[in-house]
Amino acid sequence: MNALVERIKKEGKNLGGGILKVDGFINHQVDPVLMDQCGQEFAERFKDIKANKILTAEISGIAPALAAARYLQLPVVYARKRKPITMPDQVLLTLAPSHTKGRTVELIISPEYLGKGDRVLIIDDFLASGETILGLVRLTEVAGAEIIGIGILIEKQFEDGRKKLETLGIPIESLAVIKDMTGSQIIFVE
Amino acid sequence: MNALVERIKKEGKNLGGGILKVDGFINHQVDPVLMDQCGQEFAERFKDIKANKILTAEISGIAPALAAARYLQLPVVYARKRKPITMPDQVLLTLAPSHTKGRTVELIISPEYLGKGDRVLIIDDFLASGETILGLVRLTEVAGAEIIGIGILIEKQFEDGRKKLETLGIPIESLAVIKDMTGSQIIFVE
Repeated sequence: MNALVERIKKEGKNLGGGILKVDGFINHQVDPVLMDQCGQEFAERFKDIKANKILTAEISGIAPALAAARYLQLPVVYARKRKPITMPDQVLLTLAPSHTKGRTVELIISPEYLGKGDRVLIIDDFLASGETILGLVRLTEVAGAEIIGIGILIEKQFEDGRKKLETLGIPIESLAVIKDMTGSQIIFVE
Repeated sequence: MNALVERIKKEGKNLGGGILKVDGFINHQVDPVLMDQCGQEFAERFKDIKANKILTAEISGIAPALAAARYLQLPVVYARKRKPITMPDQVLLTLAPSHTKGRTVELIISPEYLGKGDRVLIIDDFLASGETILGLVRLTEVAGAEIIGIGILIEKQFEDGRKKLETLGIPIESLAVIKDMTGSQIIFVE
């Protein structure tokens, strides 16, 4: 998507080691106008899949998931990384290694909000190793729900996340795809 | 605000000890339609304060902050509770006791996105003890920015958060105000 690609070109920073800093408009400060455009684009790309729920992971997935949700008029469930006291004792939990965080994180969903019959669209900010999204896929399957699409703001094509997800046989849509970040460059798939 | 109060009456749960569970539409699953209405209401109430930035704290403040931001066309900065690798070494950090979490949390903001001249509207999901919001106020002051308003989805009037914040002498707007949660009841200020 042009608006997102142009913004990354203008303000994104390649910090080395495959780390892209987009803290000025996605990951710490959020531009609601850009996010709204991304939400509209997701809604357009997934308008025919008949999802009834959007699933994401806290924290940075929340903004794009909500933007898409507003256009698709669907509730968003965000997996928590710590179990809050309002959650029942029995939860759906999986572990996902995060290589940008250098540790394994828990992804926790209450079975109150994800279950049999749900048709789930996953939305997240990044697709890199794919581990967070695979964690969300596992939680969805354990809940008895069905994953029917995956939408991503920024895909790092030079990591192997997409390969791991393609076995699911569902549409995977990325709004900006980066093919190379060696040195200080950020090269997009045009 | 009527839509929010009615939703809490219908789906909110008093878990005892002053804990209100609104996980079905705010804190774990988010209803984007309700959140959009809340954002519109915040925008209306704060339309004249001339804020240039909205500040919130991850995680549950992000949804209402973004909803307000879309109407006010302002960027949202969300304080992080862990420093991500994309953040510079020098950050603004404060500690805030969280009595619902039973521990002290860090609130971290990069000085890249908050500084002198910023006129800050704080938006958060709950006002209870006020400690999280006071933490955001401290960060704003350390950054050299100015707090000019505070917007809250749900205020627990029976805790003393508002008293602590009133000394700031700025508008504090809560969309739903609960005056009593003893027993299993949820009594609103009408």
